[in-house]
Amino acid sequence: LTSRLPQVGTTIFSVMSALATQTGAVNLGQGFPDFDCDERLIDAVTKAMREGHNQYPPMPGVPALRQAMAAKMQALYGLPCDPDTDITVTAGATQAILTAILAVVHPGDEVIVLEPCYDSYVPNIELAGGKVVRVPLVPGSFRPDFDAIAAAITPRTRALIINSPHNPSGQVWSADDMRRLDEMLAPTDVLLISDEVYEHMVFDGQAHQSAARHPGLAARAFIISSFGKTYHVTGWKVGTVVAPAPLTAEFRKVHQFNVFTVNTPMQHALAAYMADPAPYFQLAAFYQRKRDLFRDGLAQTRFRLLPGQGTYFQCVGIENLAVAERDLSEADFCQWLTREIGVAAIPLSAFYGNGFDQKVVRFCFAKKDETLKAALERLARL
Amino acid sequence: LTSRLPQVGTTIFSVMSALATQTGAVNLGQGFPDFDCDERLIDAVTKAMREGHNQYPPMPGVPALRQAMAAKMQALYGLPCDPDTDITVTAGATQAILTAILAVVHPGDEVIVLEPCYDSYVPNIELAGGKVVRVPLVPGSFRPDFDAIAAAITPRTRALIINSPHNPSGQVWSADDMRRLDEMLAPTDVLLISDEVYEHMVFDGQAHQSAARHPGLAARAFIISSFGKTYHVTGWKVGTVVAPAPLTAEFRKVHQFNVFTVNTPMQHALAAYMADPAPYFQLAAFYQRKRDLFRDGLAQTRFRLLPGQGTYFQCVGIENLAVAERDLSEADFCQWLTREIGVAAIPLSAFYGNGFDQKVVRFCFAKKDETLKAALERLARL
Ligand SMILES: CSCCC(=O)C(=O)O
Ligand SMILES: CSCCC(=O)C(=O)O
Repeated sequence: LTSRLPQVGTTIFSVMSALATQTGAVNLGQGFPDFDCDERLIDAVTKAMREGHNQYPPMPGVPALRQAMAAKMQALYGLPCDPDTDITVTAGATQAILTAILAVVHPGDEVIVLEPCYDSYVPNIELAGGKVVRVPLVPGSFRPDFDAIAAAITPRTRALIINSPHNPSGQVWSADDMRRLDEMLAPTDVLLISDEVYEHMVFDGQAHQSAARHPGLAARAFIISSFGKTYHVTGWKVGTVVAPAPLTAEFRKVHQFNVFTVNTPMQHALAAYMADPAPYFQLAAFYQRKRDLFRDGLAQTRFRLLPGQGTYFQCVGIENLAVAERDLSEADFCQWLTREIGVAAIPLSAFYGNGFDQKVVRFCFAKKDETLKAALERLARL
Repeated sequence: LTSRLPQVGTTIFSVMSALATQTGAVNLGQGFPDFDCDERLIDAVTKAMREGHNQYPPMPGVPALRQAMAAKMQALYGLPCDPDTDITVTAGATQAILTAILAVVHPGDEVIVLEPCYDSYVPNIELAGGKVVRVPLVPGSFRPDFDAIAAAITPRTRALIINSPHNPSGQVWSADDMRRLDEMLAPTDVLLISDEVYEHMVFDGQAHQSAARHPGLAARAFIISSFGKTYHVTGWKVGTVVAPAPLTAEFRKVHQFNVFTVNTPMQHALAAYMADPAPYFQLAAFYQRKRDLFRDGLAQTRFRLLPGQGTYFQCVGIENLAVAERDLSEADFCQWLTREIGVAAIPLSAFYGNGFDQKVVRFCFAKKDETLKAALERLARL
């Protein structure tokens, strides 16, 4: 048996969560909340099940949920979209990204990723037979390097994957960044896969710059959202893809033969819950407070704080710590931190194809205040 | 934009369900129950959500569910399997099949399918860059043609996909069939993808011949099950793949970058529900009674009844009907039957790459008795 993905091991998020469980460490590694969702959402699922919504929904998703998403795209980003032809409900954002890639990337096509990036992108492109073209974000700032992106585009470039707010760095793209991207892509056929799963976690009064706000980008984009991240239900595995009708048509050809459909009662519950926009609007403030609490605590430690404008992640440099003398790799540092200090983190090297090590690790602050405080207490010992 | 799947349209099951809804026809097309699941299963999901099981489960699935599956494979089929290394929970059987194919089929590899077959197999193989090799089941009986299968195996054959009980024909493979397959594959490296989603719907006192019962087959097989079909919750989208550790390792590499994980509260609920084996054991009798009711009714019509030993499908020949004079294709007949007679069915041609038309259509009898009676009343008019 020859592996299709010889370089791939178990995803770092599973590895670190398993180690955290095994060692009893505070798990600030894998990105998920340790608090629960709104009870109304749970009640809505129970109601949907009791009403008999337990069989296959329509292949593209429950109509009410697609309608609610269309209303949101219009209200928040000014994008008119037709729930029948432009929106598909997926089993989470990861499935959405693989499906979009399988739908449009032909063997030999090039797909540009901006490193560091989420660890599914590269194997997804490889499964489609595509060629991965890696362009680094600006070292240190994690800002897009538009000259480098422009230089990477060739006649074989099928797609570019972007992700703002950015996992792992927490960097967000500005309206100006999006305009530059729009101008750069205008003369090309390059498709855009815009991973916007942290869209409602943008801090300090900034607005999320969805590709949906820019008609030139929206016309070539798969825009990917995640209910798991927005509503604190990462285990429900429901997301959406918004794309113009011709792209959606190709997306659905693959989607119907991948998962076919997505959990029916959860879709009904999410549709009902979306009627109230408050949870969207309150999320940034909710996480900004946690970010501030966590950053204030980290400021008392020897970690070097990196900027954090969005997502529920905070990156830190480890070069000033006493343990840095031992010159541990990021990965070994995270192992050590988990085992010896009792706090799990994720090495940034896991987001690079070549394992690039800049002595930076990522913490997730989507945790109860008491969890964050317990972690900070341990980190203060360093 | 060039399509990756130019031949693919919307799956026939969605097309016929949409038409049934639009015309108010009795929907005996797409395979799903029109009755509800056990209330205890719904309560178990609510309990899991209330207990806080709403975040990512472990990537291969909730341990309790994998343990329950391992116990079932041992008890029913005598297959020892390790929940840690041999079982993965999937977002339904369709996702399991695509994922298995992406995990082991390299570009240019050949994969044998036995036609008629479920409509996802062929596009799944194409997405992996594999070459589809079609071997017909014996016309009329839908029995495996072992000589034809043997003749189709080449050094490039990576896998063979089988499906018993068989959708759409309801044919089931015997213990002898499985032994012959085992002998045929013994000298080869051909992997087996065994789609066993109708495993608990085998009638007339026969036993399901899982690949798990045959060590030589189990050692090379992905064995695919569906909770949706067994527990009347097709919309929950939970299935499993059982495969030896080296195959499971490759499967999980792709799985983690496809859906990553599967709905957490549903997994907990299914694990709890599996503690009672009665629903498994009662299912065959439950559906056999429906099959008999439906067949008895069809015997009063001019449809030609085909054998039905398993699944919740019944196939019929349409050549004796008065409308046959108009020489409609199966697909046109199904359209006509839905619109004019008010009963939706599925043309068998949808299960063939070349649209082979043998004047046979498929009904689904996973319906309330009153639904079946209403359909039979309409069909009797023919
Ligand atoms: C899919 S598991 C990990 C969740 C996540 O997005 C992350 O931790 O980066
Ligand atoms: C995945 S939709 C159809 C359900 C089914 O298996 C069938 O009708 O054959």
